[in-house]
This record gives sequence, C-alpha cells and structure tokens, in this order.
Amino acid sequence: MRFVVVGGDAAGMSAASRAKRKDPDIDITVLEQSHDVSYSACGMPYNIADPEREIEDLVVRPAHVFQKKIGLDLRLGYRVERLDRNAQNVQGTTSQGESFSLDYEKLLFANGASPVVPEISGIDAPGVKVLKSLGHGREIKEYLKTFKINKAVILGMGYIALEMAEALRARDIEVQMIKPRQRFLPWLNEQLASVVWQELLEKQVGLFPGHEVKAIEKSDSGYEILCKDNKFQADFVLVAVGVEPNSQIAAEAGLDLGPCRSISVDKGMRTSDADIFAAGDCADAYHVVSGHKTWLPLALRANRAGWAVADNVTGSEVLLPGIAGTAVFKVFELEVAKTGLNMEEAAEVGFQPQSVVIESRSRAHAHPGSTSIQVHMIGDQKTGRLLGVQMVGREGVAHRINAPAVALHKQMTVEEFGQTDLAYAPPFSPVWDPLLTTANQLLKKL
Amino acid sequence: MRFVVVGGDAAGMSAASRAKRKDPDIDITVLEQSHDVSYSACGMPYNIADPEREIEDLVVRPAHVFQKKIGLDLRLGYRVERLDRNAQNVQGTTSQGESFSLDYEKLLFANGASPVVPEISGIDAPGVKVLKSLGHGREIKEYLKTFKINKAVILGMGYIALEMAEALRARDIEVQMIKPRQRFLPWLNEQLASVVWQELLEKQVGLFPGHEVKAIEKSDSGYEILCKDNKFQADFVLVAVGVEPNSQIAAEAGLDLGPCRSISVDKGMRTSDADIFAAGDCADAYHVVSGHKTWLPLALRANRAGWAVADNVTGSEVLLPGIAGTAVFKVFELEVAKTGLNMEEAAEVGFQPQSVVIESRSRAHAHPGSTSIQVHMIGDQKTGRLLGVQMVGREGVAHRINAPAVALHKQMTVEEFGQTDLAYAPPFSPVWDPLLTTANQLLKKL
Repeated sequence: MRFVVVGGDAAGMSAASRAKRKDPDIDITVLEQSHDVSYSACGMPYNIADPEREIEDLVVRPAHVFQKKIGLDLRLGYRVERLDRNAQNVQGTTSQGESFSLDYEKLLFANGASPVVPEISGIDAPGVKVLKSLGHGREIKEYLKTFKINKAVILGMGYIALEMAEALRARDIEVQMIKPRQRFLPWLNEQLASVVWQELLEKQVGLFPGHEVKAIEKSDSGYEILCKDNKFQADFVLVAVGVEPNSQIAAEAGLDLGPCRSISVDKGMRTSDADIFAAGDCADAYHVVSGHKTWLPLALRANRAGWAVADNVTGSEVLLPGIAGTAVFKVFELEVAKTGLNMEEAAEVGFQPQSVVIESRSRAHAHPGSTSIQVHMIGDQKTGRLLGVQMVGREGVAHRINAPAVALHKQMTVEEFGQTDLAYAPPFSPVWDPLLTTANQLLKKL
Repeated sequence: MRFVVVGGDAAGMSAASRAKRKDPDIDITVLEQSHDVSYSACGMPYNIADPEREIEDLVVRPAHVFQKKIGLDLRLGYRVERLDRNAQNVQGTTSQGESFSLDYEKLLFANGASPVVPEISGIDAPGVKVLKSLGHGREIKEYLKTFKINKAVILGMGYIALEMAEALRARDIEVQMIKPRQRFLPWLNEQLASVVWQELLEKQVGLFPGHEVKAIEKSDSGYEILCKDNKFQADFVLVAVGVEPNSQIAAEAGLDLGPCRSISVDKGMRTSDADIFAAGDCADAYHVVSGHKTWLPLALRANRAGWAVADNVTGSEVLLPGIAGTAVFKVFELEVAKTGLNMEEAAEVGFQPQSVVIESRSRAHAHPGSTSIQVHMIGDQKTGRLLGVQMVGREGVAHRINAPAVALHKQMTVEEFGQTDLAYAPPFSPVWDPLLTTANQLLKKL
C-alpha cells in the first residue's frame, strides 16, 4: 500500500513512523516543504531566549534517522500544491523548482498551520518576523545575533506573543506589545487576565491594546510602527497575531472544512474522502465538553492524531474521543492554564453557565513560600456538569489543570469533582486544594 | 438539638463549625482533651525545621474564635472516657481531675489517632518523643531549643519519619533511621523506593532497615539505642512507627469496627448506632477503586467527613463516595505521590493487576532544568481499569497525581486515561505527559 504524508512535523512524522513500525510493508512517502522535520516548535521561545543555545537543539530526530533507521521515503523541500482525488495523486514543486507528481492509496494532510500576516504596508521588511516553523526560529535567532537589538515591538498578545515577550526581555531587549482589540486575553476571565497584565507590567513589558497598526516604516534607527493615534519605535518586530490552518489544497479539492477553515475529520481522522486523513494543526477535532467541532492547534493532539492515523491506515480502527481544550503557558513567573469551555463558549453551545472566581494559596496555611492562585470555574446550571476551569498563579498551576481536564473527559459534575481525593501536603497545597474550594463555592450557585 | 463532638481537631471542628453555621439553634459542645484546636498538624515537621518559627504559627483559628464568633461550647481539657449508648451520655475527666457527664442526642467521634509506641525499655525517657498533636510538636521544639542536639535517631521510615528526617537535617542534626522490616517504603514500587533511598543517602541520612530496637538506655552523652546486632548513639529519639485510630471507647460501647480497628462508618459517616457519627482519623472510609473499606488517616478526608457529618446532623443528607488513597509527601528535593491501589492491594481485592514503571522527564525535550520522573502505573487485566499510580521526581509530581486520582473516581480505563487531554508546555512537561507515556506502555500489557 502506498501511503503519502503531506507535512513532516508532529502529526506527519508520528503517523509515518508509527505506520512503518506497525506494518513494514507499507510504502510511505513524506513530503515536507521545508528542510526540517521532528522538532519541538513549542520550545522555540525558550531557545531564542538564550543566545548560547543553538536552534538545532530543538531537533528531536534528524531526517536521516527517519530515512535510514525507520525506512521512510522522506523528501525534503517538496511543496505539495494540488490534489487530484479522482486520480489519487498529489502534485507540487521542489525547492529546486522541479515539478513532482505522486500517486497515493491513502493520503494524510499534516501540513499544519501558518502564521497570520496582516496586510500592512512594510510588514515584509527584513526586521519583521513571524514564528511558527523552525526556519522562522532560525531566522529570528540569526537576526538577534547579527544586529544589536534594543527595542522590539510584538504585534499580538496571545500565548506565543507572551512567551516571546519573556524571551526578548531575557535578552535585555525592551518590549512593547500592540493589538487592535481592547480586551487583553479575551478567552480568560478578566480577574485572572489582570494578574497576567500586572506581571507583564512588572517585567517592564509595554502593553498597548486597542491599537491597530497601519504601517511599518523604515526609520533611521530601525522601524517606526504607525497606529492611528500612536507610533512606536523598534529595531525588531515580531508578528504573532495567530495562525490559520493550511487547508487550501484540501478545500480546492472539495474536502469538507470545519471551524476556522480547518479540514473537517471524524474521530478516526478521516476527511470527507475516506482515503484521505488529516491530523494536527490543519485539522479540526471534537470537543469532549460541547460535543461540537473545534479547532485548537496544539502539540499533544497533533501527535495523538498522527498515531491514530497510523493505526487506522494499518488496519486497527482507532477513534479519538476528542480534546478538552487544555492548554498551559508560562509568562515570566506566572503559570496560566485552562481546560474546557469559557463562559462565552459554554453559553454559545447551549449550556447555562455559572461561574466563580476564588483566590486561594499554593501551599498550606503558614507554609513558607506560599503564593496566590486564582481559579475560575464554570458549571452548568441545568445538569450540574463541570464545564471549564482557568487558573493563574506562580506555582502549582500547570499540572493542577490536569485534574479537571480528566473530569471533563468523564462528564463529571461539579459536585462529583468537589468530592475527589486530591493530594495534600503543606509544601504543595492547602488541605482543601484550590480546585476543591472553588468547586465547593460554585456548587452553591448551581 | 444537642450535638456533642468528641475531639476538636480537623474533623471535629469542621463538623461543629459547619453545623452551627447551618443551624444556629443547635446546641453544640466540643470536648477536646488537649488545649489546642484547629491547627495544621501536617505542617509540624516544616515548623520544627525552622528554629525561628513559633509552633503557634500552625494554629489556624484560636479557641476563642470558635467560642465567641461561631458560638460553640468548646471545652478544652475534657477527656472523654466512656460512652453509655442507652442513656445517650458520655463521661470523662477534665485536666483538673474533675469528672464530667454530658447527654447527647447526636454524637460525633472525631478523636483522631494516636502514635503507636512500641513496648521498649527506656521509650519513656525525656529525650524520646512522638509527633501527632500540636502538644507533641511543642515538646519537640522546646527540647531542640533547650538542649544542644547533635545526633538524632528516628524509629520508623514512614512519611512522618521522612519529613522529620528532613526537618532535623535542616537544623544540622545528624539523623539515623531504624526500622524492623527490611523493605524500605513497602507500599511503594521498589524502583521508585530506591530513588527515595538514594536521595536520603545523598542528604547524609543513615538508613538501617532490618533492625529491631530492643532498648533505649541513658548514656553519658545522651541515649544508646540497642538493637540485636547493632547500637546507635543519639541525644534525641523520635518514635514515628505509625498511628492507630482512637476507637477504644467506641469499641467498648459496642460500635462496629473496620480496618485497623477504626470505627466503621457508612457513606453518611454514621456508625452502627444511627445517632453516633465518626469522622477523621478514628473512622474508616470506602475506597473508590476497591469498593472496600479502608483506613487512611489523612487531613482532607477528615475535613470533608466533618462537613458531611454537619450536613447530616442538620438534615441535608450527604453521602461521601470515598477516597482514592491519594497521598503526597516531600523528602528533601523529591516529591513522592500515589493514588489508588498498589500491586499487592489490587491483587488482594480480586483484580488481576499488571503494571509498568517508566522513566520520563519533567520538562520538554531540550528544555533547561528538566529532571527525571518515574511513574509506576497499575491496570486491571480483566476490565482494563486504571487501578493506581505512583510517582517520584524532583518537580511536577505532587499535582500531577491528581489527574489519575480523578480518573479513579470515575473508574476510567487505562485506555481512556491515555486519551485525556493533559496540559503541555515545554517548561512543564514533554508533549506526551509522563502519565500518558506510562498509560500507553501499560496498555500494551493489558
């Protein structure tokens, strides 16, 4: 059987490697438009933060391992541009400018997402960068090495933007962040968002929400970022305003699309064409709380979806239950985590959401080093179900979110969750874990 | 209604305060044999570690708050010695040596557990201490302040013993630990236990399992601890060989007993006498994995049981599902956590347990500061159910255990748990959380 994989990052390489391991007789070709495969994309901000580290540290397995040891036909610099479903064939161009054409029996789209680049005059200047692929990371690292950068402007305030703000501050670069909409971290409860805001101010990050960038102009010392009623100076600009799924080829070939124009797949990662799979950042997924489709480009579900494709291509039917929308990021000293739905999302899909915000502590009464943890918890008035949790704090947030994430997978009620036996010892938690205290308070409102 | 509570610590004060808050008309008397109520017992080792801190820091609410603000009739120095169920009456002696007698309509045993003191000659010497109540903590702290202590011997190697080893080492006291049985941390997987063993050796704690103490004798410089084939010198001895439930009065009055002679209660915390409740360290509980009774004297379930008693005494029926056996402790730089059953327990209650031990990392590939995490996971061959998890590592263990704890409450299978959407960001976890990697490996054996 001839299995062709479009894209050689998390989902694509997971699928190809596992399929080859499960059935060595399958003929597997991976077409990757760049020259990088299998690297930790999420690690890039932390790598960029440290001038001593090489960007290549992030490579988990070099290409030759996949070719020699795993036995994949891995073609680097192969950009797929067209899909012919009737002929079961993909076509494209190599980095040397040569056309290629390849037949498949089973096809996987694992070609990820691309950074959104707003149409702004000057956004293509050499000192204006995006960050999604290892190639982007390499470019940024090289730029910071070559030029003496004192001031950076970041367009966007999502988690990549925030991680990069921390990375640039670690290199002693002044950072100002700009975004068009007024509300900071709009998916996060406002009280929790204000904790993150405060942390950024304390770390001397300038925050300018409500400013739409009109143009980026070359100036004597670098760039001038022009807004309607304000302007900013920088010698480096990072555009981090979001990503969008690479679904154009799939869409042009008539495959169904899901939320945010991601490629729509069933629980077995099959698209509307049974011979074509999609996995990772280009594909959608089921949300275990709403039961609806959602698009969340995150690493774990990309890897997992890649594995599921491998299983399904090699004949053992695997269905993924979906995602709980769990995510965590670090902003300087803070950990910010979420799982499930927020208030707006919960209302949108028909729940009657109620919520509380509780401030608790990361350690026991009187235990040294205890810091504040804020928990926002959402439950459904009709069914009592737990719908989502958000947390912000200086410690004990990142892993704590996994408890409600598991609860969401099993449709636990807030009452049931409040009765769970969570770990307690003074260095790690109050007797009543902040999550339990919050569940107890929320229960009173349901 | 007349509600009498025997014992003024976690379970007792939780029950009394909540009952009064829910129904101010109830006449509530709390009889506490010591003069301390509402303190963080688990915080004592950390407090003892620091000569600058007062033991009274651990008091969460002083007695007068319960008396004046909450309106409880709180009697300190009241030791209950006898229960007459026919007359619905308890009798005892005060610390001034006066007899008292008190009628009840509803009674709660919340008189906790006592340290086991082996019958060894010399164990009553002034430099030999136990640690359970705040009074014990005060005594130890005073002793360490008054005398220049250079060498300590700890009898026992359970988690209190280990926490106290850390506390004494923090005060620059040499520590040697002795226990009769050969196996170190017998409830913990051996590979994980050896990580803890190594940590203790690195912190210069002497470990002597397989030595039964025959006598403690006064010597010139302090004490000589005599074993059959070895002897140890110390100027301070801590006896931390376990605790036993204070169930004697209940047993003498004919109430049913459960595991380890704890007072047997149903899910509403009622004993075999419907007017008598028991909660906290003196009572048993249901285990959510086995469905059987168990006895685990831990703080969270004591507080929770106290609340449930308050609800049931004031007329709103509350049933507790039970405990998952979740526990965590810190030993120097290590976090040790468990939830659910271990292999022996699982086999005993009729499961067909299979398990794996996996070594993973606390942070992502190439992320600085990543350390080893070892995970031991147990599943049932027959049903595929997750039965228990144990973890040891330098970070990210304490809160990580809560995810499988929640899974156990919902009888999740290992396969389902392996599909949960756990949080990932490079500073906190590999893409595949160590728990997911372990679940994936265990699944292959089930």
